[in-house]
Amino acid sequence: MSTGFFGDIGKVKFEGPDSTNPLAYRFYDPDRVVMGKRLEDHLRFAVCYWHNFVWPGNDPFGGDTFERPWFPADSMNQARLKADVAFEMFSILGAPYFCFHDHDVRPEGATLGESVARLDEITDYLAGKMDETGVKLLWGTANLFSNRRYMAGAATNPDPDVFAYAAATVKACIDATFKLGGENYVLWGGREGYETLLNTDMRRELDQLGRFLSMVVDYKHRIGFKGAILIEPKPQEPTKHQYDYDVATVYGFLKRYGLENEVKVNIEQGHAILAGHSFEHELALANALGIFGSIDMNRNDYQSGWDTDQFPNNVPEMALAYYQILRGGGFASGGTNFDAKLRRQSLDPADLLHAHIGGMDCCARGLMAAAAMIEDEALAGPLEERYAGWNQAEARAMLAGERTLEAIADRVVKDSIEPAPHSGRQEYLENVVNRYV
Amino acid sequence: MSTGFFGDIGKVKFEGPDSTNPLAYRFYDPDRVVMGKRLEDHLRFAVCYWHNFVWPGNDPFGGDTFERPWFPADSMNQARLKADVAFEMFSILGAPYFCFHDHDVRPEGATLGESVARLDEITDYLAGKMDETGVKLLWGTANLFSNRRYMAGAATNPDPDVFAYAAATVKACIDATFKLGGENYVLWGGREGYETLLNTDMRRELDQLGRFLSMVVDYKHRIGFKGAILIEPKPQEPTKHQYDYDVATVYGFLKRYGLENEVKVNIEQGHAILAGHSFEHELALANALGIFGSIDMNRNDYQSGWDTDQFPNNVPEMALAYYQILRGGGFASGGTNFDAKLRRQSLDPADLLHAHIGGMDCCARGLMAAAAMIEDEALAGPLEERYAGWNQAEARAMLAGERTLEAIADRVVKDSIEPAPHSGRQEYLENVVNRYV
Amino acid sequence: MSTGFFGDIGKVKFEGPDSTNPLAYRFYDPDRVVMGKRLEDHLRFAVCYWHNFVWPGNDPFGGDTFERPWFPADSMNQARLKADVAFEMFSILGAPYFCFHDHDVRPEGATLGESVARLDEITDYLAGKMDETGVKLLWGTANLFSNRRYMAGAATNPDPDVFAYAAATVKACIDATFKLGGENYVLWGGREGYETLLNTDMRRELDQLGRFLSMVVDYKHRIGFKGAILIEPKPQEPTKHQYDYDVATVYGFLKRYGLENEVKVNIEQGHAILAGHSFEHELALANALGIFGSIDMNRNDYQSGWDTDQFPNNVPEMALAYYQILRGGGFASGGTNFDAKLRRQSLDPADLLHAHIGGMDCCARGLMAAAAMIEDEALAGPLEERYAGWNQAEARAMLAGERTLEAIADRVVKDSIEPAPHSGRQEYLENVVNRYV
Amino acid sequence: MSTGFFGDIGKVKFEGPDSTNPLAYRFYDPDRVVMGKRLEDHLRFAVCYWHNFVWPGNDPFGGDTFERPWFPADSMNQARLKADVAFEMFSILGAPYFCFHDHDVRPEGATLGESVARLDEITDYLAGKMDETGVKLLWGTANLFSNRRYMAGAATNPDPDVFAYAAATVKACIDATFKLGGENYVLWGGREGYETLLNTDMRRELDQLGRFLSMVVDYKHRIGFKGAILIEPKPQEPTKHQYDYDVATVYGFLKRYGLENEVKVNIEQGHAILAGHSFEHELALANALGIFGSIDMNRNDYQSGWDTDQFPNNVPEMALAYYQILRGGGFASGGTNFDAKLRRQSLDPADLLHAHIGGMDCCARGLMAAAAMIEDEALAGPLEERYAGWNQAEARAMLAGERTLEAIADRVVKDSIEPAPHSGRQEYLENVVNRYV
Repeated sequence: MSTGFFGDIGKVKFEGPDSTNPLAYRFYDPDRVVMGKRLEDHLRFAVCYWHNFVWPGNDPFGGDTFERPWFPADSMNQARLKADVAFEMFSILGAPYFCFHDHDVRPEGATLGESVARLDEITDYLAGKMDETGVKLLWGTANLFSNRRYMAGAATNPDPDVFAYAAATVKACIDATFKLGGENYVLWGGREGYETLLNTDMRRELDQLGRFLSMVVDYKHRIGFKGAILIEPKPQEPTKHQYDYDVATVYGFLKRYGLENEVKVNIEQGHAILAGHSFEHELALANALGIFGSIDMNRNDYQSGWDTDQFPNNVPEMALAYYQILRGGGFASGGTNFDAKLRRQSLDPADLLHAHIGGMDCCARGLMAAAAMIEDEALAGPLEERYAGWNQAEARAMLAGERTLEAIADRVVKDSIEPAPHSGRQEYLENVVNRYV
Repeated sequence: MSTGFFGDIGKVKFEGPDSTNPLAYRFYDPDRVVMGKRLEDHLRFAVCYWHNFVWPGNDPFGGDTFERPWFPADSMNQARLKADVAFEMFSILGAPYFCFHDHDVRPEGATLGESVARLDEITDYLAGKMDETGVKLLWGTANLFSNRRYMAGAATNPDPDVFAYAAATVKACIDATFKLGGENYVLWGGREGYETLLNTDMRRELDQLGRFLSMVVDYKHRIGFKGAILIEPKPQEPTKHQYDYDVATVYGFLKRYGLENEVKVNIEQGHAILAGHSFEHELALANALGIFGSIDMNRNDYQSGWDTDQFPNNVPEMALAYYQILRGGGFASGGTNFDAKLRRQSLDPADLLHAHIGGMDCCARGLMAAAAMIEDEALAGPLEERYAGWNQAEARAMLAGERTLEAIADRVVKDSIEPAPHSGRQEYLENVVNRYV
Repeated sequence: MSTGFFGDIGKVKFEGPDSTNPLAYRFYDPDRVVMGKRLEDHLRFAVCYWHNFVWPGNDPFGGDTFERPWFPADSMNQARLKADVAFEMFSILGAPYFCFHDHDVRPEGATLGESVARLDEITDYLAGKMDETGVKLLWGTANLFSNRRYMAGAATNPDPDVFAYAAATVKACIDATFKLGGENYVLWGGREGYETLLNTDMRRELDQLGRFLSMVVDYKHRIGFKGAILIEPKPQEPTKHQYDYDVATVYGFLKRYGLENEVKVNIEQGHAILAGHSFEHELALANALGIFGSIDMNRNDYQSGWDTDQFPNNVPEMALAYYQILRGGGFASGGTNFDAKLRRQSLDPADLLHAHIGGMDCCARGLMAAAAMIEDEALAGPLEERYAGWNQAEARAMLAGERTLEAIADRVVKDSIEPAPHSGRQEYLENVVNRYV
Repeated sequence: MSTGFFGDIGKVKFEGPDSTNPLAYRFYDPDRVVMGKRLEDHLRFAVCYWHNFVWPGNDPFGGDTFERPWFPADSMNQARLKADVAFEMFSILGAPYFCFHDHDVRPEGATLGESVARLDEITDYLAGKMDETGVKLLWGTANLFSNRRYMAGAATNPDPDVFAYAAATVKACIDATFKLGGENYVLWGGREGYETLLNTDMRRELDQLGRFLSMVVDYKHRIGFKGAILIEPKPQEPTKHQYDYDVATVYGFLKRYGLENEVKVNIEQGHAILAGHSFEHELALANALGIFGSIDMNRNDYQSGWDTDQFPNNVPEMALAYYQILRGGGFASGGTNFDAKLRRQSLDPADLLHAHIGGMDCCARGLMAAAAMIEDEALAGPLEERYAGWNQAEARAMLAGERTLEAIADRVVKDSIEPAPHSGRQEYLENVVNRYV
């Protein structure tokens, strides 16, 4: 039984590139097989709960703009209505997955006990919706940043009671994720950072965060949760500095606490940009370091210095992102979660659909272009050629640690080695990419 | 015998805050004792060779502006004249240390062998100047970025011959540093990065860089060089992305290749800014991770997106930087190197002196303010109080790994824990700092 | 009768630089005479209503942190309590001025008529408080950005009804400002811009904005309001682009609509930074163009890309800002309004006081340093010397338009003119400034 | 007779989208008619002299990488060889236009007189090449930034002799442009700005710049040059701040000196990005203000804070840029100049061709997409609808200045106007654009 929120809009279908139906897919054909796999299984789209069904359209200078029948969502009845609409939208879009925070799906209780009980109740309800619709859970997570108790951090709070409260909350959220068959569990440390070094003991806070994460990993194993634990890097905002700044920083943190084989990263395009990186950089680096997990797909306005969380729309950029993902073997437990929100002027229910349809179509175009580049070895061929010198015996020996600095120095002088530079061919390679997008 | 370059300007002396002599120190009194140590021994000032005696005042849109008697420095005679002026300046300033690249002190030879021979010859000359003046070497380094052979990287070059050439060059520079009694050896990977991911195998390049650094460390031990090996992080420029992006990234890299106990960081204010960090953040983080080594003191214009390498002049910011350094115990082998250059319109020899005098005075003011904050426990007291809850037994047990997630969760629910937020007092603490600067 | 909000904290007094009383001024001595004027009359401090008494401590990722007795301020009773506390704070601080939006002082009514009536009622109340305390109104303004009706702009809205609603609101706010003896009226166009060019007719929107401002100016004259009309530039946030981007942009806009002699600018430090400028640049430019009006004093974190609105604390930077202001003759109708907010962790009432005390002390230090530089002609002297060549007859003639391009070209060739560059002496001048701060 | 520089590469031809020939156009078919005009006549491509034939591949941290037979170009013979290769490249590419600085085409003389004579001599030679090849001059310009005499500005120099020297130089360059039938004359004020406000009198310098530009305009009219005078905005680099910051700033400047009907802007993508704007913003604004002239097409790396001048390659972004250009009526005297340079690792002559072929193809794709959007009224239709309310009589009256603030306020209250917000439909419109790119 429909809530009527989306009126008479039916399931969004693939109609091909020439379709002018704004409520159809032009590129996302879930069953199309690319590199031996269906597009749906490559992309593993997830729709998020928070931006679509919780955020009321406010910003730092303005109040709510969205008027939704489930607002204010301060009762379990409203929470169920919200779930009904959410699953309607997942079904209309044909999205195979969704993602949520505890905070998104149930009103907070007066005590943690009550909050946990409500989470348990609503996840039973969600389980029913999942059965009905076939929609699965890509990942669950805990909101450890909105409530004022977390204003100075969750795991990194100067008050150990907050650490404890956060730990208890994460346990409940892992339990909920496990119960719903979630394929990953995500931690975004939005308040794990500082506002000023003047009141911060960074070393201590890092140790707290390391301990917290270790407990999470231990718990996961103890209960038999098979999904991946994912950290989502972000450099700053809301805090001045966040400890999970970017992929490189998270890698160092994991190494420091011996967790590099237990935890992977959920990389967001917008967070990469805010950290001064391209999205494909973060993806390539995570692959190089062996910690790639999943992505939060969105885009950040290049001229805005805050998290704009817009729906992605630039296909050439997305092709380069999926190229890195496919080069690393594609998603294992991860997927493409739209951590993107409408502009606050996009008031209509249909805007939610347009946004996702556009995003999914762009992802599909990007992935298909990337797959073609891989199948053609369009970039891999020139790459192999560029590093071919390292296949020689002496070069291999240097890299294998079989040569000392002085031995190499002797050889350079003796053989009068003077390297001859070769063109890096960047413009040519950019043209090659443009054949595919 | 004076070269006459600085005319009749004599040794710069400390004259106290009220002096209006532009060629006197108003705050830098080398013999003043602060926290039990002479200011000179705290600050360990070094003057760099490259910006002062090599750079001709050009920028990406303009040619040379400086006309120096030793330009063009394409002969050993000119190299000696340059050294004469350099040591005159060190002496006028009373700077206890200097720093240099191979490239700064000798013209490059037609072959590596010739370059090394010239380096050997000029370092003999420098050794004589050092004896004469008492000026010491804070650190040496190799220029692995200017010559076109390095355009695609040194250790991370796709051509193993470049790797070998760079290795041979670094060996020669470590030898030179060792010979001159240098207290550190620095590696700045200006070309160790990429221009485009399209032609880059990041994993391979990181392995090359790890191998290179391991060889350097091995060599240092083999020859008995006791100085620290330092990496200088920079996020980008000249390349689009540099592998030694920031302190956190370098830490992860060192952990990856098992070098975190062998290598420390040389942190530059301007590079911190370009990476999206405050200088004190990078210093605090390096201390927290145990890899703090030395600093390149300068400032980067906050509105310019490239490396402006200006002389520092903002005392409150410098006080916060030295506060982090003193909190970590101060410099061991490291020091305060001015990696700063004149504006290209500052044509006069005296400008070189004004720049350093101003920078040294600001550093001295900053360090004295920081020392007073430490002696008063102005910030340490409130900090301890803020984290006092973690001294309780149950909190300690959590942090020590003696509690599981579920045990903590049980306790939170059972005891109905609801943390009470406390003021972070940022504005109050900022006022406290302003009592000292 | 005290509300008790600030407990037993009495009036903040000047106690001199050595005071360690955190609730005393160390530099702001209102009666100290500098350049022939009392510090109070130079600085003309104003405390703002919105950040201190309206903002609940939320941010884009977190809810309210402040718990104030007047929250929620949804009744006129609460509005009066808020006013009582506000004026208590103004009095404790000894601030001579305050500033407000309509939205800050009264709950919005169901209709515009009701909103206006409430504004009228509360401004009567404020008038009483002003009489009691001697606190004056620096400026009033209208909130044309929070309500969802303004989501697509106020004057620049595609819907003329919003334009009309905004016009009616501004009329009411000018009336209120006039009634309270306000010395200026400010317009900040937070929504006068666009989210995407795809749905924007920029030329039309600029014309709407020009018309709106012309009506405001006409109205001011008609009712005999003698205060200045001020535009506050900001480049972006909340919108992607705001039409009042920076001082240069506002100047061009005023020229376009013939308003350059009617309207001035209210310059905010943080907005300058977000636009890619230093604060002193915006001040110097406004003086050069003859449109300087007033300042919103705060600071923006240099590493954060959004409006952080922190209290200022860097005296050397503030000295340079007040230097530009004093060079232009100081404030006429304008003043120093603290458009700054507590960090959201600063929960205690005393934090409001610490923040303002620190800010006012820094401003006083900055202004006194600037005044000394002016009295000593520390910078003016070298400046005059630098441009001295333009005092020659031929140079004057060129600048006066009495020479053609070809005449000048002839002279250059005939006289073989080849200019000799002179040092710009930047480092020397920076040292000079550091004598004063 | 070929110089042989490009080996046996022949004229680049249009081969259609499916061509895999890297030396063919896939989209740029000069004769294809779009919106009633040939693509060549729409795009008006120009190849620039400086990046291609002058820049030796250096950067702030590295020396020359390119080895060209005409380096060093310090004789007239070498200048002629350079011209031969340049025109060969223009011909191979089929580019209808080129652009140059005086500095690019002739070695500087010992005196201005000699420099002018050499310019005269080489432009005779260029005229011959133009006749031979049919290549025309889009614009000429003077290099007023490389020589040390301009280190403190050209027109804005504190030394009036520099002003005079610059004036004489511009006269010579306008003469050269006029002689060669150039269709525009460009001024880029790379040094017209400041390094520090401490030694700068901004008001005076703006007046100098205004006077200079007025003389240029007068001269143009006097000699009968019919081309447009264009200013090229850039916010900073090489200087800390440039007076021609962005389009809005230039507009205000032109209005200040009464030149807004005489001078237009040449907008560069990279400069827009450095100023915090999107390229299409600058184009749309120039159209709105009536000062659009020409474009410098390139791209700036979004993560680099300096002028990267890369060849453009993102078609969706370019489509939005050409959309603004076509909406404004397309180019009049302006065109698409590639102010783009190879990466310094792109050593091979063929790289010059790949870069331009890729850029021209992307421009052609972008323009064709933009033209289709215009012909379909894909965006114009929704835009008109969005502002339709302003067609009503009362709305028109407000905008025409026929209503006072108080009259509007009365109407709002009387009619109880409460505007109803409508969706801004941004995501829908973004999807519409993606149908075309």
